[in-house]
Amino acid sequence: MAKDKKMVEAITSMDEDFAQWYTDVVKKAELIEYTSVKGCMVIKPYGYAIWENMRNELDKRFKAIDVENVYMPMFIPESLLQKEKDHVEGFAPEVAWVTHGGLEPLQERLCVRPTSETLFCDFYKDAIQSYRDLPKVYNQWCSVVRWEKTTRPFLRSREFLWQEGHTAHATAEEAEQRTILMLDTYAAFCEEFLAIPVIKGRKTDKEKFAGAEATYTIEAMMHDGKALQSGTSHNFGDGFAKAFGIQFTDRDNKLHYVHQTSWGVTTRLVGALIMVHGDDDGLVLPPRVAPTQVMVIPVRQDADGVLNKAMEVKQILSKHFRVKIDDSEKSPGWKFSEQEMRGIPVRIELGPKDIENGSCVVVRRDTHEKITVALDELQNKLAEILGAMQSDMLERARLRRDESIYDATEYDDFKRIIDTKPGFVRAMWCGNEACENKIKEDTSATSRCMPFEQEIISKKCVCCGKEAKNMVIWGKAY
Amino acid sequence: MAKDKKMVEAITSMDEDFAQWYTDVVKKAELIEYTSVKGCMVIKPYGYAIWENMRNELDKRFKAIDVENVYMPMFIPESLLQKEKDHVEGFAPEVAWVTHGGLEPLQERLCVRPTSETLFCDFYKDAIQSYRDLPKVYNQWCSVVRWEKTTRPFLRSREFLWQEGHTAHATAEEAEQRTILMLDTYAAFCEEFLAIPVIKGRKTDKEKFAGAEATYTIEAMMHDGKALQSGTSHNFGDGFAKAFGIQFTDRDNKLHYVHQTSWGVTTRLVGALIMVHGDDDGLVLPPRVAPTQVMVIPVRQDADGVLNKAMEVKQILSKHFRVKIDDSEKSPGWKFSEQEMRGIPVRIELGPKDIENGSCVVVRRDTHEKITVALDELQNKLAEILGAMQSDMLERARLRRDESIYDATEYDDFKRIIDTKPGFVRAMWCGNEACENKIKEDTSATSRCMPFEQEIISKKCVCCGKEAKNMVIWGKAY
Repeated sequence: MAKDKKMVEAITSMDEDFAQWYTDVVKKAELIEYTSVKGCMVIKPYGYAIWENMRNELDKRFKAIDVENVYMPMFIPESLLQKEKDHVEGFAPEVAWVTHGGLEPLQERLCVRPTSETLFCDFYKDAIQSYRDLPKVYNQWCSVVRWEKTTRPFLRSREFLWQEGHTAHATAEEAEQRTILMLDTYAAFCEEFLAIPVIKGRKTDKEKFAGAEATYTIEAMMHDGKALQSGTSHNFGDGFAKAFGIQFTDRDNKLHYVHQTSWGVTTRLVGALIMVHGDDDGLVLPPRVAPTQVMVIPVRQDADGVLNKAMEVKQILSKHFRVKIDDSEKSPGWKFSEQEMRGIPVRIELGPKDIENGSCVVVRRDTHEKITVALDELQNKLAEILGAMQSDMLERARLRRDESIYDATEYDDFKRIIDTKPGFVRAMWCGNEACENKIKEDTSATSRCMPFEQEIISKKCVCCGKEAKNMVIWGKAY
Repeated sequence: MAKDKKMVEAITSMDEDFAQWYTDVVKKAELIEYTSVKGCMVIKPYGYAIWENMRNELDKRFKAIDVENVYMPMFIPESLLQKEKDHVEGFAPEVAWVTHGGLEPLQERLCVRPTSETLFCDFYKDAIQSYRDLPKVYNQWCSVVRWEKTTRPFLRSREFLWQEGHTAHATAEEAEQRTILMLDTYAAFCEEFLAIPVIKGRKTDKEKFAGAEATYTIEAMMHDGKALQSGTSHNFGDGFAKAFGIQFTDRDNKLHYVHQTSWGVTTRLVGALIMVHGDDDGLVLPPRVAPTQVMVIPVRQDADGVLNKAMEVKQILSKHFRVKIDDSEKSPGWKFSEQEMRGIPVRIELGPKDIENGSCVVVRRDTHEKITVALDELQNKLAEILGAMQSDMLERARLRRDESIYDATEYDDFKRIIDTKPGFVRAMWCGNEACENKIKEDTSATSRCMPFEQEIISKKCVCCGKEAKNMVIWGKAY
């Protein structure tokens, strides 16, 4: 049994060193591998399968609200990137530049897209002429590049996968509605599919997207109490439209600028899955997103009839669940460890005694609960167990998060909490960037968002004591 | 009616100017738009939906034969690209080079992947240690960049979308089997899904992939008689393994080099769809790949009950087909033209008289045949019509192709046929690259492949008259 445990023992415990625990899980669960291209990773089959499930589910949800997929070039000419002032300031310092094509130097440098607002605007400027051409609700699934100095698997890498939606509308109201609709779509996806509870809110001006009028965000709390910005939706107003000259003739026969939005989520969400649900045995995946939902593990598989029965169970369940069987020559204990490390929601243990009794043992990955189930009830029972696991995981994550959100009305309290307790702090803010900067400097916490659900905790800014405008959620963040 | 025809009339006829016809279709069917990034295109929603259907179908077929998806970085360090001699010679002249990251010059240039053999090899070198780690059958869906001088939508652009599979095997036999399996998968996909007949064969050494031992290809004939290489599958032997040091310990406890393959198809296939099936009214899509299979077009939609009935028909059919309704304010004639231009397989015309008779008129896009169908039989009848259309399109394309394949035993004949008749020529070849070069110089035709189905047309090379080794298919190509 000692040998069986080796693989698990090799993981650092979460409490001991959370960062190392994360890296261990990412490697041991075979999600990612480092490459000789600094800051870029290989997403391995298991990691990619998780992303693929996310993408397929999100894409289905997008299509149900009239999003159309397109593909834009990966290169942006330098002059195009420079058209919107705030945007170029935000991104130019962190892009990769192509200067040669084949053996020739280029006449104009091209950057590898860090995001594609400028390309979509350049396209919309000609594609949109009349109100009949509106709205445009386009999205693309692609990779983008940002030349980060320090990188971490899934959380921050020089290249990452994402979707970016870019829309154009006839009115400001419609643009705002789309911005919120997409944020709501992200929030529902995170809670229903990933079992990750999120806080919806608006970013402060300091934290908003380069070129946006308003940035909305969903913020999730990781196991170590840190925040992960898990998706954003931006309302650009007509700022980009004016910079790029995107006008249309409306029913009034006059020229108007369009109103635009953009919104995205990335492979960061895989990082969120790990850090919200994982434990000291490895990854724990909610059943809906899990590439494999059920692992059948024969016990004493050399015994007469065991392997056949296990195959049969696998076959029957495959019609309803994503099932695999581990019939390798490893010991059952080793197989259990591997299944746990990979976060497969349940395993089915099936040995000679179980078969004799016409039953098997179902083990939940999240609670380690062992449930003896009659084989002829297995299908229904499994559906129940997986359903319960999905909702339990969301509830547990929500409870844990809510227990780690503290209110602070005095600055000393604020600093003490941030300093000593993992989690978020709710505190009032005057709306002045100086206070935001001071808080960041004093505590390294940043404003995560002004949540949509506001509550007046006090009348004074927690930092300067002047009249407060908004309740803000503060926290250290990835 | 004159106005209704305008849109169609704006297309150049195929016979008049095939290249212009192609460009017209690509634009008018709203597949693609040019961008301010030279040689790069926007794939618009309709064009992308076609690619998405191809990708989903192919991906399903891949997964059924144990292919796993991954994601590799888009950048390749210059030193990595240079590791395999033939490979770097083939690709270095046509890659885009990143020289700066953010504000800093890079220590080593990175190229944007033109293909990812080198990255997969770099990964496999560590990931593969034992025979237990084999085979690796990985694939990725991504975009690649090749700095082409002249570009055409879908057929040749500086950036294009594709899938690239990269595998590693314990034995040469297994690698060869996988190479052929993937070629067969491509061929079946083209014929069954895209209704495009292809010729399977092996490339000559001159035409094979940079670094491959053998390249297999599927070649399709376009409406103008030119060839389009529609997919390739390469067997690398252990050449890359030796260059990158990819070794494993086999059951014999000795170190062996792996045997590798790679294989890919691209958005070129959208170009093939256009040029195999299109006509002077625009695109014609086989039902299986069509984003919209049925367009319901109400006639006299202002008349009492017409629009409601049309909606109802659409609703019912939606459970079984991909259906849209065109209830815009355009005239029916205009709507017909648009549906034809976009190649939607069938339209359903439904007016007051049809409703009175309890029927509607189904019009096939490929034959323009009008079929009166009772509304209560519509669902079954439509399935029949779409099924017939799918197989008729394949058969027609096959007939047209076969009628344009000529045999030549004398060089004068060969030259005359290539010069005067669109299509392919079958002729014997001695295996000498000098003859291949001479033929290309004299006629601008290239060797498309040595088809798997060989036939001895004569005993002499059509060019030099020496002893022939293979029958080769020759043709002008995209």
